[in-house]
Amino acid sequence: MLTQEKTKELRPVIWSDEEQCVQLIDQRLLPYELKYVAIKNHQEMAEAIKDMTVRGAPAIGIAAAFGMALAAKENSSEEFLAEADRLLRNTRPTAVNLMWALDEIKKLISSSNKNLYETILKEAEHILEDDINRCKAIGKVGADYIKEKFKDKIVEGQQLNIMTHCNAGALATGGYGTALGVIRALHEEGLIKMVFANETRPRQQGARLTAWELAYEDIPVTLCTDNMTAHLMKNGNKGEHIDCVVVGSDRITTNGDAANKIGTYQVAISASYHNIPFFVAAPMSTVDMSLSSGDQIPIEERDHQEVSHINGQTCTTSKEINYANPGFDVTPNALIEQVFTEQGLFAAQ
Amino acid sequence: MLTQEKTKELRPVIWSDEEQCVQLIDQRLLPYELKYVAIKNHQEMAEAIKDMTVRGAPAIGIAAAFGMALAAKENSSEEFLAEADRLLRNTRPTAVNLMWALDEIKKLISSSNKNLYETILKEAEHILEDDINRCKAIGKVGADYIKEKFKDKIVEGQQLNIMTHCNAGALATGGYGTALGVIRALHEEGLIKMVFANETRPRQQGARLTAWELAYEDIPVTLCTDNMTAHLMKNGNKGEHIDCVVVGSDRITTNGDAANKIGTYQVAISASYHNIPFFVAAPMSTVDMSLSSGDQIPIEERDHQEVSHINGQTCTTSKEINYANPGFDVTPNALIEQVFTEQGLFAAQ
Repeated sequence: MLTQEKTKELRPVIWSDEEQCVQLIDQRLLPYELKYVAIKNHQEMAEAIKDMTVRGAPAIGIAAAFGMALAAKENSSEEFLAEADRLLRNTRPTAVNLMWALDEIKKLISSSNKNLYETILKEAEHILEDDINRCKAIGKVGADYIKEKFKDKIVEGQQLNIMTHCNAGALATGGYGTALGVIRALHEEGLIKMVFANETRPRQQGARLTAWELAYEDIPVTLCTDNMTAHLMKNGNKGEHIDCVVVGSDRITTNGDAANKIGTYQVAISASYHNIPFFVAAPMSTVDMSLSSGDQIPIEERDHQEVSHINGQTCTTSKEINYANPGFDVTPNALIEQVFTEQGLFAAQ
Repeated sequence: MLTQEKTKELRPVIWSDEEQCVQLIDQRLLPYELKYVAIKNHQEMAEAIKDMTVRGAPAIGIAAAFGMALAAKENSSEEFLAEADRLLRNTRPTAVNLMWALDEIKKLISSSNKNLYETILKEAEHILEDDINRCKAIGKVGADYIKEKFKDKIVEGQQLNIMTHCNAGALATGGYGTALGVIRALHEEGLIKMVFANETRPRQQGARLTAWELAYEDIPVTLCTDNMTAHLMKNGNKGEHIDCVVVGSDRITTNGDAANKIGTYQVAISASYHNIPFFVAAPMSTVDMSLSSGDQIPIEERDHQEVSHINGQTCTTSKEINYANPGFDVTPNALIEQVFTEQGLFAAQ
């Protein structure tokens, strides 16, 4: 079912000049099918962000920027664009990149600009290319830090075992990835022995996306359920011990607290308990300068069917059962050794 | 699809006098269907233990004892029974209750006993009834301790929120349960506000069994994925904060380390990080007097299809993906406030 050629770099958001529309990988179909869906207007884009056809903080920002271009193609009045902005902005409340990308587009909107569609489209394409370059820079910052940290092991010719949670990969960004960008950069130097990918219930981005994305590029990956973390950190797996953890982030506050997919906080606590370094990799656009602490980050409570169902099948039958489904959690800065950004190591205030 | 009447107490292992066979709830079908399957010989029983038709350490011990009765019905020669014992003993290496129950049966086997079938059957029935009584005693010990611990809250008229992992309930024992026995005992006194049940991947015993079992008896339950633990401990859910954690155990070493379903260790680490008391509830038969530390407990590595598949559907497609699937982990005594047993609080050596 995997139709994309292996030689092609994974790109979740593509602009089609021919059809003047956006092509999104429908990430809900992965890993069963690699299929692009055409997004022809900003309403379709808002829906695609909301229903997670496209997901991952940077990819959402890029998608929203293209969504504004589609809106401007339809109607470039300030009123219409303000309404499109509002619709796109309200799709995923936790992702700050979404707000950042929409703010970048907003700066361009003025009644004096006669070519708003072209201007916004150009900016969206710029945000996309920029994101890929940024991911590569983040990858290098992270790989350099980790190489220095584990230099004794590397000097002995040993490779590293890295755990990650959710998908902060090419699929979550313009391409290359943030956390997986660090892993890709290390892999390019032959330094990756094994990536331990957590399944990431309830939507299984680790199983469906990260394991698939890594296997797609022949990077060795071991899939684990989310509750194996502490055991694997203590006991290893087939003689391999976890050297460090690298995850992405959806929002970082100025003190260095980081919101990311539910379960990240728990991995960080287990890492701390076992003295395993825990890293966050994210572009500077993830930093929310208006918030000084992770306690201020709103946490999205998602549809309870995500917990009661798996792959569309229910796993509970009683109507009397309640569900919790926070989409994100916040890892406090005390549990994070470094945040890797395209500008270097993040300096918390 | 739930055909058993609500008034009936849940019993996973029943001896049918009429048909001279064992009836097991096929726990792999829960929560979709409550169906008993007839087990007519010890080979079928070994298979039922291995494929988790029956699961939970005490229930497995009871089932194995009845398996020996079925063997004695067929052939009461010492050789035949030794072979049946060997077959049953090798089904689930981590569960010490299995060894304990088979050892109890073994004591009865001698060539001088002419009614071995009746003798072993009587002993199996005794082990079953004894187990239910033991669970009720464990429930009382745990409930008394927890009531004392939270007396200030209870005096104010508040109820408790308790997290549990996997299923240490009626379905895992002769009836009533160990961890859920403590919860049942507190519920009988009107002291349970909410039980937070972890889903427990990869086999989802929390979603399929615990949530179902509690809802079946109208005990309030909230189902969570395994990676929400730390977030819920820090932030609560809908204003409710977790007061303590109670789990079962498959093997306890003399120093008080406890093996239990994969993920338990991680819950204990998160509980410790948030200063939330963590308790284990288990019969004394769970204690392996031959082991002085949890490091000596063998951990069963289970079929990787359990991780790659959910409800029979695969969630990964790449052959290049590796899997980890340790069935259990060990929680060190330092993270356990008390172990509740039918004889009172466990005194570690």
